[in-house]
This record gives sequence, C-alpha cells and structure tokens, in this order.
Amino acid sequence: MDGNDYTPETARQLSREVRKRARSGELADITLSLAPGIVQCNVAILPKDWSADFLKFCWANPKPCPLLAVSDTGDPMLPGLGEDIDIRTDLPMYRVFLDGVMEKDILDIRDLWQDDFVTFAIGCSFSFDEALRDANIPPRHLQLGVSTAMYRTNIEATPAGPFKGTYVVSMRPYKPADAIRAVQVTSRFPNVHGAPLYFGDPTGIGIQDITKPDFGDAYPVYEGEVPVFWACGVTPQVVIEQSKPPICITHKPSHMLLTDLLNAELAML
Amino acid sequence: MDGNDYTPETARQLSREVRKRARSGELADITLSLAPGIVQCNVAILPKDWSADFLKFCWANPKPCPLLAVSDTGDPMLPGLGEDIDIRTDLPMYRVFLDGVMEKDILDIRDLWQDDFVTFAIGCSFSFDEALRDANIPPRHLQLGVSTAMYRTNIEATPAGPFKGTYVVSMRPYKPADAIRAVQVTSRFPNVHGAPLYFGDPTGIGIQDITKPDFGDAYPVYEGEVPVFWACGVTPQVVIEQSKPPICITHKPSHMLLTDLLNAELAML
Repeated sequence: MDGNDYTPETARQLSREVRKRARSGELADITLSLAPGIVQCNVAILPKDWSADFLKFCWANPKPCPLLAVSDTGDPMLPGLGEDIDIRTDLPMYRVFLDGVMEKDILDIRDLWQDDFVTFAIGCSFSFDEALRDANIPPRHLQLGVSTAMYRTNIEATPAGPFKGTYVVSMRPYKPADAIRAVQVTSRFPNVHGAPLYFGDPTGIGIQDITKPDFGDAYPVYEGEVPVFWACGVTPQVVIEQSKPPICITHKPSHMLLTDLLNAELAML
Repeated sequence: MDGNDYTPETARQLSREVRKRARSGELADITLSLAPGIVQCNVAILPKDWSADFLKFCWANPKPCPLLAVSDTGDPMLPGLGEDIDIRTDLPMYRVFLDGVMEKDILDIRDLWQDDFVTFAIGCSFSFDEALRDANIPPRHLQLGVSTAMYRTNIEATPAGPFKGTYVVSMRPYKPADAIRAVQVTSRFPNVHGAPLYFGDPTGIGIQDITKPDFGDAYPVYEGEVPVFWACGVTPQVVIEQSKPPICITHKPSHMLLTDLLNAELAML
C-alpha cells in the first residue's frame, strides 16, 4: 500500500480492525501509530452519581480533559465516536480503581459493567503528535517508538465537587525555534490538549527529576533543547486517586480507544 | 475622551496630527504609543539601482523585513499607507548612511531627496505589542514606557545581491505560560514580524550580554522569566552597514512612520 492508497476510509477500516482485535483480547499493546490519522481517546468510566461533577471537572479543565464524547447512562456504545464501539471490550487494556486505589489492569470490563456507568472519552496527544511529525518537528518518542513521557505536576486543576488534584503533563524536547513552531501547530488542536502550558525548568511545575517520568517512557533532552510540556489526558486518573469514587475504570496509559474520527477533522483554523 | 469615543477614525486623525507635527519639525521623539491602534513602520530609502535587490532581500527574509509598502521611483508619497504621507518630512527622525556608515540623525530629508529614491516601509513590532497588551500580557517596555531592547544576533539573513548580514531581534521577557500565549498572539501578525524566532539562553543566537542592548533601552528579565526574541525591522540598518550602498536613509530606531492603517486590519485568523 503506498501513500496514495491511504485514504480516510482506509484509516477508519484499520481503526475498526484494531478495535476488533482489542475486543477479542488479541491486542493488549500500546496503540501509538496503530492507525495513522485516527483520533485516539483517553477514557474514564464512572457511576452516574459521580458523572455530573466529573463532567463539570472536564468542562472546567479543558486543557487536560478536552471532552470528545459522553455516553448515555448505562449504554456501553459510543456512536458519536464511531461504528459499533463497545467500551466494555474495545480498549486494549483497562485500569480499574476502587475507592481511588489502582486495583488492576485487565483486558475487558464485561464482568464489571454497571447499569449506571457513564463513559467519558477525552482527547489524546497522539492526535497532535501526528501533526507535529507532519510539520517536520517529530516528537522524540515517535522517533524512538516509545511511549510519551508523562509527569505529575504541582499545577492545581480547577476542582468540581469531589474531583480535585494536579495536572499530569506530557513532555516533548525541542530546540527553541521548533518549540515555537510546536506551539503554533498544537494550537490548532484545542480538542486534544491544544498548545503547551509550560516549557523549561521542570521544577517550575513541580517535576523534580525529568529522567524519571511517572507514566510512559523516559527519553533524553539534549543540549540546546528545552522540555516542552502539554496537559495530558492521564490527569483524570490522578484526580480519581484523590477523589476516591467507589469504582472508576480508565484506559491503561498509552492503551487508547481508537475511533472513526480523523485527526484532520479536529483541526481548527 | 473615553474608550468608546476612540474609533478607527479618531486613531487615524491622531496619526495624521503626529505626521503633521513630525513634518513641521515639532516632533522628534520616539513614536511608541503616540496613536494607539495605528500601524507604524520601519523605513529604508535606497537608490533605484539598489532597490530590486533590496526588494528581493525583504521577500527572502519576511520575518525581519515584512514589507507593507514600496514607493514608485522618485515619488516621496506613500498612498498605500495613508493620506498625504510625504516620506521626506513625516518621520520624527531620520538616520543617514553613506557607504554603509552611519552619518547623522536629522529631522527631514528634503535636501537629500533624489529622483531615483525608492522607499520601503516595513512592519514594526509596535503593532503586536499592542495585541500583547490587549491579551493581558503587556511587554515590559510598554509598562516601563521605554524603548524596546534590540540586539544584534548571529542569525544569518538569506542574502540577495549585495544585501547580507545578520538579524536584529527585539526582546520581551515572559514567564513560560505567557511566552506560549505570546507565540499565539503574535502568530496572528505575520506582516509585523509574526511569531518569535527564539527564546531562552541569549548566547544561543549570539547575544553575549542581555543587559546591553545594541539599540533601544535595557530592562530586566526576572527570575522565572525567559527572554523571548522576535525578528526586528532594524535588521535592514545592519544589513546596509554591510552592503554599503552609496546612500541609504532609514528611520532612527523607535522613531517610526505612522500610517492610516489599523493594527486590527493586519491581524490574520
């Protein structure tokens, strides 16, 4: 298949195949680069009693939590994101939190599903990573084929009801001129975290050791580069640790929900 | 006059009065803030023999030299920029270069005018300074009421014929989050230098001492801030020093040509 054959329909077909493999349990890997051009989502599933406050939390914190879809109560399907998406099975890996404590990572959540569950799908930086690569400023983790480095910070999210906590950020190292270009490129994608929120000295946002990410993989920041930090969709997981809902199910970091939406459809301007 | 009374027509009236005072020799000051909302220009005047190469130089270096107007040969008027603009008299102060050497600063150039002169009007950062202030991230020099700090760098411009040299940049200190916002705000104004081209360690672009600008005034970069650098319309003056045309007349830095155009008219997006 050459580049000309890779149409939006090809991308959506590929995405549906990924979901099918996740559904069957065959795919349990990180989803980076699995379906180029396709929007991938962070996921959080909560009981209805907690959903209004969580929705407000997302609305109040659009940089880490840009909402792409909210399900109907008890309905595992997400028709707004694509064809036949069943959130009980279509993620490669799930992470289960009970009373705010991470309990386990599992392949599907059919046995845990509740009639009062509401699913939230949140934009993911994989979308703008692709735009950065296309702008000839590829993020290092794409070049290395590893997971994005993510860090807990001291940036307080705007609280909503029981939901409070600090931002998680993802980091990409760039030379200053490329960092400026990266601000421009990612500003076009407010639905998937948008522009970075910080760059430079990591301690300025409470990151003590840049070589030790809290999630994902480490990679170097070379001489002449600065680390540039974007708000990250793993933030809800940290917030859930603090707000302690009786049950919450998320994706395992970097194991995202693939949709039928195209990144190009999300671009502003 | 309250804010509601300050219409585009008021701004243009004010601008015409500034030009009239410059024409009479009454005004010889820096023009920052003299007519809010009005586009101000860097100016370079060259003999026709040198004008094609200079035009190509501007085209090839749009960040330091975004062209807003080029006059007809020998014609001192600039109708594309406003009503009755006579470039021989309407700048507060002129700087004369003979064979690339700065000769003198003078109030008008009626005695020096040649029938083969071509005038180039180049966008000025005063336009985006206003946008930065309106976005609640005012540049420090506006707050202090001083001139922008400008520095010679080691960034090579793309040469055109005899015109070659290095960029001059202007500097504004910002905290990282505000610097990111400043990238967004100034990206809307490609006709007046657009986005910054560098930030951080000044030696990375050949600036040895940030406390000693080559043009304009010095101001501090505080703890937690980074210096952010934009291409500057003083670049042509440095290039003229190197290319040594027999005569070239520019504005004196920060003593700009006021037009009838509005900054808001230049904004993209």
